[in-house]
Amino acid sequence: MRINGIHYHTIWTKENDSSVVQVIDQRKLPFQFEIFELKNVADTYFAISEMVVRGAPLIGVTAAYGMYLALLEFKKGDLRQHLEEKANYLKSSRPTAVNLAFAVDQMLVFMLENISAPDLASKTLQKADVLKEKEIEFGDKIGEAGLELIEELYKKKGDTVNILTHCNAGWLACIDWGTATAPIYKAHLKRIPVHVWVDETRPRNQGARLTAFELGEEGVPHTVIPDNTGGHLMQHGLVDLVIVGSDRTTINGDVANKIGTYLKALAANDNNVPFYVALPSSTFDPELEDGVKEIPIEKRDAGEVSDIEGWDGNQIKSVRLIPEKSKAVNYGFDVTPARLVTGLITERGVCEANKQSIINLFPEFKR
Amino acid sequence: MRINGIHYHTIWTKENDSSVVQVIDQRKLPFQFEIFELKNVADTYFAISEMVVRGAPLIGVTAAYGMYLALLEFKKGDLRQHLEEKANYLKSSRPTAVNLAFAVDQMLVFMLENISAPDLASKTLQKADVLKEKEIEFGDKIGEAGLELIEELYKKKGDTVNILTHCNAGWLACIDWGTATAPIYKAHLKRIPVHVWVDETRPRNQGARLTAFELGEEGVPHTVIPDNTGGHLMQHGLVDLVIVGSDRTTINGDVANKIGTYLKALAANDNNVPFYVALPSSTFDPELEDGVKEIPIEKRDAGEVSDIEGWDGNQIKSVRLIPEKSKAVNYGFDVTPARLVTGLITERGVCEANKQSIINLFPEFKR
Repeated sequence: MRINGIHYHTIWTKENDSSVVQVIDQRKLPFQFEIFELKNVADTYFAISEMVVRGAPLIGVTAAYGMYLALLEFKKGDLRQHLEEKANYLKSSRPTAVNLAFAVDQMLVFMLENISAPDLASKTLQKADVLKEKEIEFGDKIGEAGLELIEELYKKKGDTVNILTHCNAGWLACIDWGTATAPIYKAHLKRIPVHVWVDETRPRNQGARLTAFELGEEGVPHTVIPDNTGGHLMQHGLVDLVIVGSDRTTINGDVANKIGTYLKALAANDNNVPFYVALPSSTFDPELEDGVKEIPIEKRDAGEVSDIEGWDGNQIKSVRLIPEKSKAVNYGFDVTPARLVTGLITERGVCEANKQSIINLFPEFKR
Repeated sequence: MRINGIHYHTIWTKENDSSVVQVIDQRKLPFQFEIFELKNVADTYFAISEMVVRGAPLIGVTAAYGMYLALLEFKKGDLRQHLEEKANYLKSSRPTAVNLAFAVDQMLVFMLENISAPDLASKTLQKADVLKEKEIEFGDKIGEAGLELIEELYKKKGDTVNILTHCNAGWLACIDWGTATAPIYKAHLKRIPVHVWVDETRPRNQGARLTAFELGEEGVPHTVIPDNTGGHLMQHGLVDLVIVGSDRTTINGDVANKIGTYLKALAANDNNVPFYVALPSSTFDPELEDGVKEIPIEKRDAGEVSDIEGWDGNQIKSVRLIPEKSKAVNYGFDVTPARLVTGLITERGVCEANKQSIINLFPEFKR
């Protein structure tokens, strides 16, 4: 999608130097547009854990390129052991998004299978590129599947379709298109009138900063709201559809996503507003059943709650929000039970949030 | 309650000059402690609408003193008409809190009844003082009634009682004690171990700024959380009780309170966590039945959402949170339907959130 009219992906190898991977520094958006360079595994770990890049699909692809960088930085010793160590290291950069382990494991298996190939580096880069292209394709197809839902609502209503989303499950969380935003972009391109309620998404404000930014750059009408507002809007018929992304979804359809998603799902359920989760197959964790009990929830630095970053007119500035004597806590995600999810929008189409329906679309998840 | 060890009320007449009313400037807390002076009705209107003072009970009492200031500023003409005009003007300063109209109307009726009294000014000041004292007494009694609930939970659990609250329904929202916080202070004074989850309460962060501050000054253990976090905590058994305040409660028990309260009520309901609303009788609106349909919801300046204030180390600083091209919207309140409310904690004891139970406690509300 576009920034300032120019088409970007969130990640790519540097022009004329494929030993460097470049990403958009998402810590600076929407105030500053900067490119951040990954030259080794340590850079990659930093970029993921410090949220230079974020969003489950992008975390996965970044880690895939990280495995390629792990190969480049290998000097001597046991390559297999080196790669396994770096894989574990990368997987520990963030705990909740399952795409991370999924991508790293795929890369590792591929690299170990081809460990004696003389062109292992170029083969590995190609493999990472394939994972990246796959995520773009997933976004495109999720967009097409979700577009049908929006079209239906538009036909019924005959007026602007109001969609609420939480956090950023946009192209900035992926490579292109996004997951939750893909159907919105497709509808907008098809000139179906849409308007997006963008949850601010404290503490890191991915909605206010990233979703608002990318929708604005694509010309999609939107309004930023505090995370507290969605229930009131739904009570008053101002939301036709909720679409969010996911960081990990169990085989039973329980959805881990940014903290606060569960509250919006409850409100949608209480007001008969359809609540959809858009996710690529790489976000399913077929090993887990009960999301609330089993999905590890990341606890991040309390400083993200006690302080906030914004634009002071000249620069990005952090200000303190709470009294000196008070402390804060910062859970990154919550789990929305499948019973509150109307449906899952995947690259293979829409299914219900239950084991049978998920396995019908993805028979490979059967254990 | 205390600030820096010294006991304060939120509003008082100036020592040695009872023609000036003084309030704590709540726009500056917790970063700066400043006194703001009300010398006339315009100051009073400003203080209420700009939230120098806020919280339904305090708004009511401030407006009561505003009527006294209206009398002082009267020069010539028709006093009755002057008072009626100022009453309407004060009532228009904020739309949702019913205490405002309740207090102004009580003052107006009293002043018109005594309009020919030679000592009308001192009588009026006394009347405002009585309303203030009444609110203190309400807080004290709400505290005693709510204390029983906390004691019961403590007896059952035998460990720290975790209480979640939203916004500031503390002594800063009242005169002393608070509504939602009154039972917490009473429990703390009785050495029952309590810990409070303080919702940040975007957009104006009354939780992060005011509730955290006043709990800290009284030494009550607490943790600030983003508004998104309550659902996750309840899913994991980390909340034993929710207590919030109210800006207006209908005769059927529907509760208008700070935006986002409804989302917490849904989560409490979904996780069998008791959800109580603490309010004085002055917050009931016996004229209204269906809160979602009938209670007017204030729409405030979008700048409160697009920008945020914090402490930069030297001063209070505002930073922008959203892209230049994006807009925001700011609804001040939402309505929690009575079906989600476990009970109402009032100065006459606890009742259920329904017409019969409310009228049993407050027969004067019968129409």
